[in-house]
Amino acid sequence: MESKDPNKKIGKLYGLGVGPGDPELMTLKAARLIRECHAIAIPASGRETNVALEIAKGAVPEIEAKELLEISMPMIRDDSKLQESHDKAAAMVILELEKGKDIAFLTLGDPSIYSTYIYIHNRVTAQGYRTEIVPGIPSFCAVAARLNEGLTEAAEALHVIPASYEGIEEALALKGTRVLMKSGKSIGKVKAILEQMENPPRVKMVERCGMKGERVFNRLEDLDEEASYFSILVVKD
Amino acid sequence: MESKDPNKKIGKLYGLGVGPGDPELMTLKAARLIRECHAIAIPASGRETNVALEIAKGAVPEIEAKELLEISMPMIRDDSKLQESHDKAAAMVILELEKGKDIAFLTLGDPSIYSTYIYIHNRVTAQGYRTEIVPGIPSFCAVAARLNEGLTEAAEALHVIPASYEGIEEALALKGTRVLMKSGKSIGKVKAILEQMENPPRVKMVERCGMKGERVFNRLEDLDEEASYFSILVVKD
Repeated sequence: MESKDPNKKIGKLYGLGVGPGDPELMTLKAARLIRECHAIAIPASGRETNVALEIAKGAVPEIEAKELLEISMPMIRDDSKLQESHDKAAAMVILELEKGKDIAFLTLGDPSIYSTYIYIHNRVTAQGYRTEIVPGIPSFCAVAARLNEGLTEAAEALHVIPASYEGIEEALALKGTRVLMKSGKSIGKVKAILEQMENPPRVKMVERCGMKGERVFNRLEDLDEEASYFSILVVKD
Repeated sequence: MESKDPNKKIGKLYGLGVGPGDPELMTLKAARLIRECHAIAIPASGRETNVALEIAKGAVPEIEAKELLEISMPMIRDDSKLQESHDKAAAMVILELEKGKDIAFLTLGDPSIYSTYIYIHNRVTAQGYRTEIVPGIPSFCAVAARLNEGLTEAAEALHVIPASYEGIEEALALKGTRVLMKSGKSIGKVKAILEQMENPPRVKMVERCGMKGERVFNRLEDLDEEASYFSILVVKD
């Protein structure tokens, strides 16, 4: 910490999972911390921005009165530029922590699973500031609830695979339940792989689970290849 | 449904995830439903029994005034006897639903991931009763929060493997983050497998995360082979 005055109050950063969509699926802790924090942070760009804030508003209307920090986190393909962008975002958060503000950084689902928040978290933590991850309901748990069925029983494995995963064909052939996250653009490709399997698995998909425009697909052949980024596939033997 | 009187009120079954241990990690929905349901169900045997109820009490003290249904769900190895036991448990739940009671069946973590509740859920659903899964924070999300680090970034896969999984050695060698659930007795075996890997992975373990007696192990060599059933390992490259 750069602070020189030992009495100066430094804020704490909370990476706060708001869950998958339904405001009621926020935890009691997330709701309390939103009320207690001085400022709310969200990524200024990227599709999760308004979604996470809208979810939080649904559970904690008082959030409207809080200071809102919009942190620039553009989607960048070039790795060194992306690192630089994350460094800048972390620096912006630290600037606010140094002012003594406790900050709730909102993230969809759970902060430990494919969140963009984690890149900020790791940098702010490494620089010696107080940080805490507040778990949220991951989207795939909400998808299972929406389908009204379990993901895994007893001795089965659960494989969570992002659609951007390199060895997607191999991953889809793993034993156990396979969950494909943020499928969007890759639905066509994934559908083709699954259709060609020797023992065609049971496949279901939920698009925009718990959000406006939710759609449920119960058979592989029905999957809409044009479905949104917020689509999750569940593949079982 | 067996009811013959069309005006007879039939209850609804909620499979309710209370999360990993900290009562504040219960969702707003779980807390509301506990207040609204007529009866609370828990497995009468098995280690999760009192834990789930204690968690719920921590967030919703009013639960003490509710009718408590203890559903017999012994740990049975023989498959046909286990099926029979689950049938009986489901029948007991249905008997209460037929009395018009809405029931909140408490389960640790999330009901869709390795819960014993799901066996009841599938049976009660198949018999035409109204059922709903209410997601909870899975234990591995709480473990990540406890370790103050993410589980997966960007294009990585997340493999959740129960310690009782048959191909454990193969599963431990998968690319991406591997989470071992309910490790308990198998910690020694898993430790030996991990130690012999060509590129030794980074291994952390949390025992009884968020509960009394919590312990964190940050290195493979430190893992206590005598740790409890509620131990979760996180394995990263």
